[in-house]
Amino acid sequence: MNDEQLIARRNRTLGPTYQNFFDRPLHLVRGAGMTLWDADGREYLDCYNNVVSVGHCHPRVVEALCRQAGTLNTHTRYLHAAIVELGEMLVDRLPGALDTCVFTCTGSEANDLALRLARTHTRRRDIIAVDHAYHGHLTSLIEISPYKFAGKGGTGAPSHTHIVPMPDVFRGLYRGEEAGIKYAEQFEEGVARTGGVAAFIAESLLSCGGQIELPPGYLQAAYRQVRAVGGVCIADEVQVGFGRVGTHFWGFETQGVVPDIVTMGKPIGNGHPLAAVVTTPEIAASFANGMEYFNTFGGNPVSCAAGLAVLDVIEEEGLQAHALQVGNHLKQALANLMAAHPIMGDVRGRGLFLGVELVRSRETLEPAAAEASHIVNRMRDHRILLSTDGPLHNVIKIKPPLVFSKAEADWMVQILATVLAEDACQV
Amino acid sequence: MNDEQLIARRNRTLGPTYQNFFDRPLHLVRGAGMTLWDADGREYLDCYNNVVSVGHCHPRVVEALCRQAGTLNTHTRYLHAAIVELGEMLVDRLPGALDTCVFTCTGSEANDLALRLARTHTRRRDIIAVDHAYHGHLTSLIEISPYKFAGKGGTGAPSHTHIVPMPDVFRGLYRGEEAGIKYAEQFEEGVARTGGVAAFIAESLLSCGGQIELPPGYLQAAYRQVRAVGGVCIADEVQVGFGRVGTHFWGFETQGVVPDIVTMGKPIGNGHPLAAVVTTPEIAASFANGMEYFNTFGGNPVSCAAGLAVLDVIEEEGLQAHALQVGNHLKQALANLMAAHPIMGDVRGRGLFLGVELVRSRETLEPAAAEASHIVNRMRDHRILLSTDGPLHNVIKIKPPLVFSKAEADWMVQILATVLAEDACQV
Repeated sequence: MNDEQLIARRNRTLGPTYQNFFDRPLHLVRGAGMTLWDADGREYLDCYNNVVSVGHCHPRVVEALCRQAGTLNTHTRYLHAAIVELGEMLVDRLPGALDTCVFTCTGSEANDLALRLARTHTRRRDIIAVDHAYHGHLTSLIEISPYKFAGKGGTGAPSHTHIVPMPDVFRGLYRGEEAGIKYAEQFEEGVARTGGVAAFIAESLLSCGGQIELPPGYLQAAYRQVRAVGGVCIADEVQVGFGRVGTHFWGFETQGVVPDIVTMGKPIGNGHPLAAVVTTPEIAASFANGMEYFNTFGGNPVSCAAGLAVLDVIEEEGLQAHALQVGNHLKQALANLMAAHPIMGDVRGRGLFLGVELVRSRETLEPAAAEASHIVNRMRDHRILLSTDGPLHNVIKIKPPLVFSKAEADWMVQILATVLAEDACQV
Repeated sequence: MNDEQLIARRNRTLGPTYQNFFDRPLHLVRGAGMTLWDADGREYLDCYNNVVSVGHCHPRVVEALCRQAGTLNTHTRYLHAAIVELGEMLVDRLPGALDTCVFTCTGSEANDLALRLARTHTRRRDIIAVDHAYHGHLTSLIEISPYKFAGKGGTGAPSHTHIVPMPDVFRGLYRGEEAGIKYAEQFEEGVARTGGVAAFIAESLLSCGGQIELPPGYLQAAYRQVRAVGGVCIADEVQVGFGRVGTHFWGFETQGVVPDIVTMGKPIGNGHPLAAVVTTPEIAASFANGMEYFNTFGGNPVSCAAGLAVLDVIEEEGLQAHALQVGNHLKQALANLMAAHPIMGDVRGRGLFLGVELVRSRETLEPAAAEASHIVNRMRDHRILLSTDGPLHNVIKIKPPLVFSKAEADWMVQILATVLAEDACQV
């Protein structure tokens, strides 16, 4: 079956909601470490996939998954050691107050559960979220995700959702050293307009917002204000957590705060459907009101075996420190590239959570979205996989598996320089 | 680590929302086919687990899962054959109008997506659901699940939820041959009280309602009435589908209807987190309004490999026909047992989706909930795993893996007879 036939069958059976990356869809058949192979045996460097964070098909994770799948797979109403061990390992990596872990299958399920926890605990419904945020594909999460409700096909924010501006120091209202304080003041005005909230939810670095680092002091001030009106603070670490930012295991640690609820997903099982919520004993006690939470597949022994293997690999291969080292190296190389390429408006991020914002003018900041799309498709021709992000679709996102090497980073930057030299990228 | 230590650690880390089956929790370590083993090497016959429907750790499914996990696991924005093949196989098993398949990770995600499809298509919000139903643990599903919102910790039905009575021919208002028509009239009155609805959602046999078969004609009339007011009909096949009812592959087929949306989950991956929604091209087209649906883990190659293997096994081992044969045999044996045990008020269900409702009196139908719990715990002492269900907690549910043999069914009935002869079961 050739690709055209596969595309036709895919369109017929999966329908119009399924989209493909790239102008010419990519048909992948194999992966290992940083490498993906297409159906014609061509090799690609994966600089985009933050789910398989310890590398494609890591043998240790595959082995753990297979061993447990052949031994026992059942649910959490029986005792099993793996779920307890994984819960303990996650809780051990979090501040002391966060000691209670509940497993789900996806980051969306984790964020929905976080909202249920917050709403049950506070007996309020309203949620504060950050502009352009995406917290998941479920009904309750579309309602708090401007990325979805304010975009094509969206029906706007419901009355219980309150949106605060992105604290974007490149393109937003405030820049420079005072930005954290200024955005916090704007946040405070936002809180004042609510009649009290159940929760504030935010990623600790903004993904769909365009790979944006929060300015120093922002979350500390925001958390203080939310708690002052009786709300709880949810850190959505689904994309950010698990060592990717390099300096810390969790993104919220870069802001010096302790959330009341932390959600995690994507890299937790290296692609296996697994996610979790960790919260405080007080919130867990409020939630234990007689309505059992049961998630059929959530926390099953096979998922937990994968989760345990991922944590072991991150630890033993020193992937957090590695992400910091390679990320710093890459960020510096990208910054050097900026000097020669006026289209590069900003290089930002931490560790291996990086973004390059493209502009047609560094004065007006006119977004270079068509150019971003061109670059991603041309990089694919050179067998390097990247993607775009941001509300203006002009941010190249770089979120490779954490096993990314300096040599691979250098190669990526070298090819990027070639593509940036093309006519289509001159501004 | 002994069980007491494991329970203490579990309670400390997973918190109060996690519950265990049985008065003495069961610590399982291995499974194969119909058999589970505990940490002390004791063997149990699993007559309850409808998720591992082709048997615990089926070698064919494990092999498919492991092979793909070692080859490639990525998401649906790249082309891959497995997701297309699985989508086609599911669509092929459904009536012609249902031709578009979307993958999720859990039955809850599938039901939430079904609501989103229905609401986007109809531009309405209201949902009709059946009393005591459970459709999932997400915010949007608690709202339409009386099993949750009307129980402990629940906050009641929101204004967009409309509940119709269970068409229960054992304990409900109407019995006998006319019941289907009478309950349909009651349903019509329910529809009339709404100002138009987005959807009617129902399981095709009622699980949490107490393993209840719908009376003939019920769904045909209900679907007609829902469509008359512009709503769509959702069949929740998460527990019922995939051959369990024996006569048909899907539960809705027993009622001679064609839904507009079908959701499926639990047995689809034999325990691997996978689920799906199948709908019509019209509804899929309405949903393709520019807001992409993307589920990070949903429809990944590993999940699809497991799903393909499950369908192959059901086909090659003839498990649907087997479920009918063994189910009929078991149902007859249970019916025979009723003569000697007045506590058995009703034996019902289809194929290997069976329930035994226990009563203290066949006249008053006073529910025998304590006795049901006693029986389940005593059966566990005899190393047979069952569970209870139903709004009055007095229904023994029997939903074994479909590989259940007649000899195992006979053994289960023999042990049940022994337990029913105990003092605690005399009424």
